[in-house]
Amino acid sequence: MQHVPAIFWFVPAASIIALCFAFFFYKTMKREDEGTDRIKQVAMYIRQGAMAYLRQQYKVVIIVFICLAVFFAFLAYGLHVQNNWVPFAFLTGGIFSGLAGFFGMKSATYASSRTAHAATKSLNKALTVAFRSGAVMGLTVVGLGMLDIALWYLILNRFVDIDGTQKLIVITTTMLTFGMGASTQALFARVGGGIYTKAADVGADLVGKVEAGIPEDDPRNPATIADNVGDNVGDVAGLGADLYESYVGSVLAAVSLGAAAFAPQGEAMQVKAVMAPMLIAAIGVFLSIIGIFMVKTKEDATMKDLLGSISRGVNFSAVLIAICSFAILYLLGIPNWYLLATAVIIGLLAGVIIGKVTEYFTSHSYKPTRAIAKSADTGGSATVIINGIGTGMISTAIPVTVIGISIIMSYLCAINFDIHNLLTATNVQHGLYGIAIASVGMLSTLGITLATDAYGPVADNAGGIAEMAGLPEEVRHRTDSLDALGNTTAATGKGFAIGSASMTALALVASYLEEIKIAFSHIGQNVLQFADGSSVAVSDASIMDIVKYYDISLMNPIVLVCIFLGAMVAFFFSGMTINAVGRAAENMVTEVRRQFREIKGILTGEAVPDYQRCVQISTKGAQKEMTMPALLAIIIPIVIGIIFGVAGVVGLLVGGLSTAIVLAVFMANAGGAWDNAKKYIEEGNHGGKGSDAHKASVVGDTVGDPFKDTTGPSLDILIKLMSMVSIVVAGLVVAFSIF
Amino acid sequence: MQHVPAIFWFVPAASIIALCFAFFFYKTMKREDEGTDRIKQVAMYIRQGAMAYLRQQYKVVIIVFICLAVFFAFLAYGLHVQNNWVPFAFLTGGIFSGLAGFFGMKSATYASSRTAHAATKSLNKALTVAFRSGAVMGLTVVGLGMLDIALWYLILNRFVDIDGTQKLIVITTTMLTFGMGASTQALFARVGGGIYTKAADVGADLVGKVEAGIPEDDPRNPATIADNVGDNVGDVAGLGADLYESYVGSVLAAVSLGAAAFAPQGEAMQVKAVMAPMLIAAIGVFLSIIGIFMVKTKEDATMKDLLGSISRGVNFSAVLIAICSFAILYLLGIPNWYLLATAVIIGLLAGVIIGKVTEYFTSHSYKPTRAIAKSADTGGSATVIINGIGTGMISTAIPVTVIGISIIMSYLCAINFDIHNLLTATNVQHGLYGIAIASVGMLSTLGITLATDAYGPVADNAGGIAEMAGLPEEVRHRTDSLDALGNTTAATGKGFAIGSASMTALALVASYLEEIKIAFSHIGQNVLQFADGSSVAVSDASIMDIVKYYDISLMNPIVLVCIFLGAMVAFFFSGMTINAVGRAAENMVTEVRRQFREIKGILTGEAVPDYQRCVQISTKGAQKEMTMPALLAIIIPIVIGIIFGVAGVVGLLVGGLSTAIVLAVFMANAGGAWDNAKKYIEEGNHGGKGSDAHKASVVGDTVGDPFKDTTGPSLDILIKLMSMVSIVVAGLVVAFSIF
Repeated sequence: MQHVPAIFWFVPAASIIALCFAFFFYKTMKREDEGTDRIKQVAMYIRQGAMAYLRQQYKVVIIVFICLAVFFAFLAYGLHVQNNWVPFAFLTGGIFSGLAGFFGMKSATYASSRTAHAATKSLNKALTVAFRSGAVMGLTVVGLGMLDIALWYLILNRFVDIDGTQKLIVITTTMLTFGMGASTQALFARVGGGIYTKAADVGADLVGKVEAGIPEDDPRNPATIADNVGDNVGDVAGLGADLYESYVGSVLAAVSLGAAAFAPQGEAMQVKAVMAPMLIAAIGVFLSIIGIFMVKTKEDATMKDLLGSISRGVNFSAVLIAICSFAILYLLGIPNWYLLATAVIIGLLAGVIIGKVTEYFTSHSYKPTRAIAKSADTGGSATVIINGIGTGMISTAIPVTVIGISIIMSYLCAINFDIHNLLTATNVQHGLYGIAIASVGMLSTLGITLATDAYGPVADNAGGIAEMAGLPEEVRHRTDSLDALGNTTAATGKGFAIGSASMTALALVASYLEEIKIAFSHIGQNVLQFADGSSVAVSDASIMDIVKYYDISLMNPIVLVCIFLGAMVAFFFSGMTINAVGRAAENMVTEVRRQFREIKGILTGEAVPDYQRCVQISTKGAQKEMTMPALLAIIIPIVIGIIFGVAGVVGLLVGGLSTAIVLAVFMANAGGAWDNAKKYIEEGNHGGKGSDAHKASVVGDTVGDPFKDTTGPSLDILIKLMSMVSIVVAGLVVAFSIF
Repeated sequence: MQHVPAIFWFVPAASIIALCFAFFFYKTMKREDEGTDRIKQVAMYIRQGAMAYLRQQYKVVIIVFICLAVFFAFLAYGLHVQNNWVPFAFLTGGIFSGLAGFFGMKSATYASSRTAHAATKSLNKALTVAFRSGAVMGLTVVGLGMLDIALWYLILNRFVDIDGTQKLIVITTTMLTFGMGASTQALFARVGGGIYTKAADVGADLVGKVEAGIPEDDPRNPATIADNVGDNVGDVAGLGADLYESYVGSVLAAVSLGAAAFAPQGEAMQVKAVMAPMLIAAIGVFLSIIGIFMVKTKEDATMKDLLGSISRGVNFSAVLIAICSFAILYLLGIPNWYLLATAVIIGLLAGVIIGKVTEYFTSHSYKPTRAIAKSADTGGSATVIINGIGTGMISTAIPVTVIGISIIMSYLCAINFDIHNLLTATNVQHGLYGIAIASVGMLSTLGITLATDAYGPVADNAGGIAEMAGLPEEVRHRTDSLDALGNTTAATGKGFAIGSASMTALALVASYLEEIKIAFSHIGQNVLQFADGSSVAVSDASIMDIVKYYDISLMNPIVLVCIFLGAMVAFFFSGMTINAVGRAAENMVTEVRRQFREIKGILTGEAVPDYQRCVQISTKGAQKEMTMPALLAIIIPIVIGIIFGVAGVVGLLVGGLSTAIVLAVFMANAGGAWDNAKKYIEEGNHGGKGSDAHKASVVGDTVGDPFKDTTGPSLDILIKLMSMVSIVVAGLVVAFSIF
């Protein structure tokens, strides 16, 4: 087991420690008092609804996973175009991703009632409870991710029976398979959870807020329990599965590109290149835990203190991971270590800038969102929508440019700024490794950044429980403040998520070409014969040789057409998920209206609405609608691969990636801006609650809901899943494609 | 002048004949009676407003054109990186495109009053007048286009002082410069006109229809004149400039690729390849004129008869141009003539299919639009928006796939289905020529398809005049029927426009690489030295050599990043134009509300509103907002070229093209579906006019306005303009780029 150096054990150690601390935070959170019986009862409703939904979702997902595993087994054992471990690795990825969402949600559903109760005492106390629950989620995700990576690395090292530098390449690309499992499960979780939560939210808002004029989370609203269940299944479980996928995806891409890039320098150096991203991630786990403990404030803390306290924790981890990257890469003896570590800093900086831009475009402290609020006043709902869409589209400029610059800069760092030989075989491999390392750097402190993201929904839910349990007004104020604080801190998290997703996806495209080389060996082709008469042995071929062999240039009509198709798939997928929310929401609206009409006394509080029906409608809607979009992501790269071959697949992935990034930023920011424009009006501007401007802004917020919470976040996963599917079925494409 | 064979004179002849018939139709249309004094007065207001706006727009455009011409003169005479003819060709393109819009609009403003008056008599009479005005526009556009092409072909043949096959290559790529002039002017016309018309439309609808509850085009609405002026400057003048640009763009791209592709076969064959697209377009002119004369019905014609009559004319021209393409290519003696002509058929078929799909997604005879109308009833404005966006996104799937298939099929036709040598130097050149020829085929009968597109706004305006002049109810019914008929026939036109735009844009990217070769000769570089040690003389280099030299592959990080940036530019441009409409519309809303509030007696008809103020607001809004988006399209390719070089520019263009196509289809279809969902409700479904569902559907229609009439149509031009700018500044990029 020469490929497992002593320092490797740091990785499983980090995993175990993360899981232990997650358990510790879970326990301390659960020790908190849950409060009154009414709180307990409401919380139990929500918990039961959430768990019931998750069971339903997993039922669907299990069927899909079994079908896919059988298909992969057929490719491996029947057609012999694939590694035998693929079906198993695929399954574990799905299971671990599902577990990450499950534990996160379990913790959140216990924490929200406790946060509500804690908020009766103080803001600080509520923050502590909610943030601990966020920490459970953050640490569970990174702990399980590291565990899966470590396990498969050990298993494959033990059983893969190849010698030389090929061994690590096979191991690392096989590990990408469990990334596919994670992405598949994540896509179901994001799409299903997103449809669930937004159907409920839209239904509750449109009838309750706009038509009946009752406040949010009012117990008289039949959809209110479903809405709160939705926050858990969408914003918590979906988020957990999503970031689990991002986290392992970035590490796996870097690991696989490292093995390929350093193969010419021999196995010893290869192992070091593979260890580097794992160790950066492992160190990130420790720094996250320290950062989490730094988040505490004095008893009489103001909002500003709270924000400062969280920022301190996050910044501490970010700065230290940058420094540690230098140390890790230096100690490993990676050539060009200081420039590679600079790539990590570039990635982190990019994340911070994107976060700031997101904040500028979506916070109502700034001009864009205020302009949307103003247009609610002057124009009404139509101009709110027009301005929100326009602003969202404009907001894509800086983030996409920053992502572009950081891709080029981290590439240049990794090739020692050898600008005049940008594309030699060696430089390409190293450059791509640099991009992947930068992306790992961005996600390395996910333990804490996810914690700052995940406590928001807990606070949101606590607010709902406070409302439904009839707690005093000030409790709701406190949970609202926490929720708003969560939105601000989450902006940075979103910056990291979108930045790293793009870079990971790009790295995965490169890994695809690596996998193509392995696929040649599966079908017994040992030489690549080029059109110009020259040839190269597959074992010696570089990524650029594959590019040349398949002519993956922009004048290849197949590449061009598949770029178009990729762009279209991003839109088509978005349309399907948005429409799914629309349909499910309409059913919810009809049901809520029916209850108001038929069950007399709901609005006066004399009768209890039928919460259960609304929960069922959301569950059914999500279950029915989530399968098609998810299957699309799996089937399209296979079909394109079979018809158009490798060049077509790369075109599809690049076209999909470029459009999906922009679309995702647009949707996230438009949705965020609408949400906060509404909040701005609710704070008393332009007529405040109940005014025509407020109603117009609610329309904007409602349209933004599927944008920012269903479709937007799913797009990142879509692209990575398509890349991973392509990697997994590479053997099939190489063996059987038409063109 | 060996490059000007006798058959060439067919091209100027077609041009003169088209212009003569345009003049003839204009005269017969003007001979019609204009009706009552009130009609004349209203028509005069509209005409004056439209002309006043056009003057303002041209003032801005002239400044921009002078600046750009000076810049090009500096590149040519100062830096010597460009052909000396560029500044002049650029200017004529702009002037001719402007003239096409101007004449079309002049004719439309005279025709709408006459159509209104004719509609007092019969539907058939109204159709004849409106359709003749459309024919003026159609024939002016193709006549001026052919004229410009013929003139510059003659001038450059006379003065370009090069021998051998290079001469035609230089001539044809220089001619692309006047395509840039046309595109620049078209973008201003589309964006400016689009902002003007939609600001007025949104303002008129939101306050008049929704708040005050008065019908469309009611003279009590202060924005009503501005709204009708807008139809002329946006839907007529903008459309004319736009399609002029598409028309000459497709011919120029084909001509330039033909010269390059057939250079190895010697000058004689080159001339034939250059003549082919010109002749197909010229024959298309004659067929269009015949088709236009076929559009007539008996006096008691029903709507179905009218539709049948128009379809007959259009189908006649389309079928005959397909047949004639075989004849032209055979008689010219182009090798592989029957397959190349098949490419024309493929293009035509693609246009028809895209048209049908557009109809399916946007006509309220089908499910998608009815579902949007239903969601107005069940959910309200928010679900109308959600469903419209979702449906619009889904509707991109088939059109983009069809475009993709037709690109690949026409490429394969042109290379004789030599699948195993898809990318040899010769095959690439011929394949791209095939794509360009297919795109010429799609637009060759523009004379008649534009006529069927352009009479819709005339009928729409006639309806407005009827309303304002107090003509009987049935007049409005007739003009509405004509308008609806126009929407149906225009769907096919849109299919051709979007399909040919994508294919032309792709051909332009190829022309860009051709221009790069010429740019090398400008800066005195005669040999391309490749990274692998081999080299080739610039004069012998193929497009694929340029691709190899700059490594325009998908693993080049510069290419990838610039693809991202291209996708972003499409969104950013869309955001800018959408927000521009939003801002201008808000000003309009404020003004209309002010007039209702301050001028007593408007709503009772006792006081006359201040129409002029609204006209001014639209004019100012358009003038202020149109410059930035248009300049963006010109500046970005120059900046990207200077920083990232040729590979970056190609990435930018491909990324922009792929995203812009999808975005354009999405916006056109979402906008159309919302429009027709509203009309469906207005026909009495889901509660009819005045119901809550109707109000919700008006919000959808309003959001859709900038989508379908400002941003959507501008996106096609944006991409072609960016390609043309790249071609024109190629010398600058080759000489001075950083990477």
